[in-house]
Amino acid sequence: MIRKRKDKEQVLLSNTTKIKVRFSEVDSMRIVWHGNYVKFFEDGREAFGMRYPGLGYMDIYAGGYTAPIVDMQLQYLKPLTIGQEAVVQTDYIATDAAKICFRYQIMNLDGELVARGSTMQVFVDLNGDLSLNNPPFYEQWKKKWLNR
Amino acid sequence: MIRKRKDKEQVLLSNTTKIKVRFSEVDSMRIVWHGNYVKFFEDGREAFGMRYPGLGYMDIYAGGYTAPIVDMQLQYLKPLTIGQEAVVQTDYIATDAAKICFRYQIMNLDGELVARGSTMQVFVDLNGDLSLNNPPFYEQWKKKWLNR
Amino acid sequence: MIRKRKDKEQVLLSNTTKIKVRFSEVDSMRIVWHGNYVKFFEDGREAFGMRYPGLGYMDIYAGGYTAPIVDMQLQYLKPLTIGQEAVVQTDYIATDAAKICFRYQIMNLDGELVARGSTMQVFVDLNGDLSLNNPPFYEQWKKKWLNR
Amino acid sequence: MIRKRKDKEQVLLSNTTKIKVRFSEVDSMRIVWHGNYVKFFEDGREAFGMRYPGLGYMDIYAGGYTAPIVDMQLQYLKPLTIGQEAVVQTDYIATDAAKICFRYQIMNLDGELVARGSTMQVFVDLNGDLSLNNPPFYEQWKKKWLNR
Repeated sequence: MIRKRKDKEQVLLSNTTKIKVRFSEVDSMRIVWHGNYVKFFEDGREAFGMRYPGLGYMDIYAGGYTAPIVDMQLQYLKPLTIGQEAVVQTDYIATDAAKICFRYQIMNLDGELVARGSTMQVFVDLNGDLSLNNPPFYEQWKKKWLNR
Repeated sequence: MIRKRKDKEQVLLSNTTKIKVRFSEVDSMRIVWHGNYVKFFEDGREAFGMRYPGLGYMDIYAGGYTAPIVDMQLQYLKPLTIGQEAVVQTDYIATDAAKICFRYQIMNLDGELVARGSTMQVFVDLNGDLSLNNPPFYEQWKKKWLNR
Repeated sequence: MIRKRKDKEQVLLSNTTKIKVRFSEVDSMRIVWHGNYVKFFEDGREAFGMRYPGLGYMDIYAGGYTAPIVDMQLQYLKPLTIGQEAVVQTDYIATDAAKICFRYQIMNLDGELVARGSTMQVFVDLNGDLSLNNPPFYEQWKKKWLNR
Repeated sequence: MIRKRKDKEQVLLSNTTKIKVRFSEVDSMRIVWHGNYVKFFEDGREAFGMRYPGLGYMDIYAGGYTAPIVDMQLQYLKPLTIGQEAVVQTDYIATDAAKICFRYQIMNLDGELVARGSTMQVFVDLNGDLSLNNPPFYEQWKKKWLNR
């Protein structure tokens, strides 16, 4: 399901994908170890990139850049346990700065929010220098998917 | 080195520990994958617990509780690469709420800040209920190490 | 696709499941880090357990046992890279000993074998003692799925 | 402690290094998840490379090669639990083939063997072709450390 929303501050592109908790992802309290949600966010980002092509790791690299994460925030509301399935909703947050911003919500199959968070990525060129402007490939991606 | 600092808002206990970047911790950009800093924070917390005993996973569990992380924030300032060593400084942030709050700073061997962040833990009893008050074992720990 | 094969030595139950390589699973050589195949085997085992219920982690635990892996072997024939999909074929190898034995084959979407391996699990009761005989729940599972 | 042994089949170089079990490394059975021993072997290999320089990831890469693992075997004898320390002994196994072979033994602090295993690496040049002969940098390393 592709959705475009307009609200006061931002245009959103959104995608959802399913995950399933692996045995190796739970800790000795039998709940998913908090660090593993970073992978769930990555799964969400990856699935988002499949739906809105042009923003994947290889696209960015082919465009002459890398896009390291410079900020990540996570809130944990309910535990996930072995074998449990969940849905990762990944929202693209538009910004005029030379950044890629995502918000994430992870819901269990009862529709309860179990975790949420955000990531911010910047653009670094192949000399290792931070880009203060949007790289051309990103401008094209925005034009295509956001009409701006 | 054990430090106690008083400032306007809080009493700090602090500890530092060394980490070394493993081959399996770097990603295809040859820098530490951002999710692995969660483990570095955990290493910092663990080393803190060795210096100020009574707050480790087993202590909390023996006290009849678990202390899941409910909030985690990370900022990434500079990359770390294979084999590089770094120092994790873990600061205990005093709060009157029934929470354990830590701040983290990771510095490379040139003394540059490469990442920082925070975690907040709450107390959940063995029935799975959130504790709104400090558990007895935590009161004792605070009395011992913070004199309050 | 459920298959039962008879050959000289053993009866096989077999299952296949798809995996997809995550960004965080590749190393600085841009291929899947060898340790991550352990998770692919686990994914295969888990999917096998969905098709032939009664042998999952929770089933074993409910039966009064744990089934730790005591031997694991892996051979790597071709690399897998970011975003690549692959198929894990998990074969149950019958044995009269009190053990669970699986063989794994991982194939890329061109049908080439990229890795293979095996795991052997034993049964440990809740006192931590090794079981020399098949636990009752495992006898029932064998009777149901292997007719013996 | 550097040791050189001669026996019928091989010359050994050996090194030991300490590891400590992290909270995030144990599973829901409260023992180290079997896949994490792959990292312990890597820690052993890394520490070996510090003692006998010239065989590290960066050395191999600087020599124009990568050295992917093509075979790994692990046996698990006793569990390791949270916070437990252990020693990884890494033995270099000489071979005339164009390969790097290591054996590993992991012992707890009571001196009991908890796990053992092996890895075999081959040399792949930067075109992705398998090298059937020892690369020059490896010949030099062997001459220096093995006198042959």
